[in-house]
Amino acid sequence: MRSGKRTIVPAREARAVRVTAGQRVSVVDLEGGQVGDVFAFVSTSASEHLSAAHTRAATNRLFPEVGQQFVTDRRRPILTLVSDTSPGWHDMLIPACDQARYAALGVKGGHASCADNLDRALAAMGLSAAFTPQPVNVFMRIPVQDDGRLPWLPAAGRPGDAITFRAETDCVVVVSACPQDLVEINGGEPTSLAIDVLP
Amino acid sequence: MRSGKRTIVPAREARAVRVTAGQRVSVVDLEGGQVGDVFAFVSTSASEHLSAAHTRAATNRLFPEVGQQFVTDRRRPILTLVSDTSPGWHDMLIPACDQARYAALGVKGGHASCADNLDRALAAMGLSAAFTPQPVNVFMRIPVQDDGRLPWLPAAGRPGDAITFRAETDCVVVVSACPQDLVEINGGEPTSLAIDVLP
Repeated sequence: MRSGKRTIVPAREARAVRVTAGQRVSVVDLEGGQVGDVFAFVSTSASEHLSAAHTRAATNRLFPEVGQQFVTDRRRPILTLVSDTSPGWHDMLIPACDQARYAALGVKGGHASCADNLDRALAAMGLSAAFTPQPVNVFMRIPVQDDGRLPWLPAAGRPGDAITFRAETDCVVVVSACPQDLVEINGGEPTSLAIDVLP
Repeated sequence: MRSGKRTIVPAREARAVRVTAGQRVSVVDLEGGQVGDVFAFVSTSASEHLSAAHTRAATNRLFPEVGQQFVTDRRRPILTLVSDTSPGWHDMLIPACDQARYAALGVKGGHASCADNLDRALAAMGLSAAFTPQPVNVFMRIPVQDDGRLPWLPAAGRPGDAITFRAETDCVVVVSACPQDLVEINGGEPTSLAIDVLP
């Protein structure tokens, strides 16, 4: 990695990092083919968070592109997408997986989920979210069809691919290495990610 | 209208109605060309609400089609789309307009908004929402382009067009006649809607 601080996000888990305005934060697909659910909260207000819906209204786009800003539920800039070495698939349509999702897929007795991972990663910092915001799902490949259908395809990230954001305000960024192993988005076998905080 | 109870939603305002499981509720575009922001909350839990994001994951579609269910943030069915006499444009990508949106559009001193309308309509029932869920924007025309761009076009509903839902659980449905008059979604001149609750 470039100089900076690396945090490993083990497969099926999440980690939170504090990022100062102006710093960059990268999410790295260490082994390839892994989706990361990315959440961001304004440090001074645990309730103000990156909002996929408000970002769509700000950018007039379905999916992120380099140079664009992500905004909060108060429509204030929180992150800017500054570079992307992956094939460019990142989803802003699908909510975090949760117990209800896995129960509907037939799982009995619980399953790791990005929603629970978020809560755990925030708790490790003494924080909590009132609800689970819709994440930006980096490396997740949902190619919208002409008729509006949404296929869920295996992530196309290659080992070492990275998407990098600049913080527009002091914030807490949470990355969950999505534990989904019942649909094909992670190729059936979740793997780990890394978070690099760069000066 | 068919037999049932009609509630007029004056231009730039919202109204809430209680709907029992099995009842149908229609949103009617009285004069044509008007967007309605539709919110729904489970009666027994003010916090459980229709979620556009969870509905996309349940239907694997960007936009509603007749026969589909809308689900809550707990992934439980709340409404089913049973009929639609409009040209079929309904948005599930764009958040409710709010003071921050109008400030960004250059408005000074406040402007009616769907977010404030929601709060007011719920308060009239003694309810409050912890935050503004992303609504289903009936009659709103956001035709996604091949490159993912989202143009905001004038609503294409004709006078009397109606979209009808069946309640899958007892719920509170809120409809805001969107006051947006600075972008073209309402043709520049917001008008009124009606809510018909049908047995």
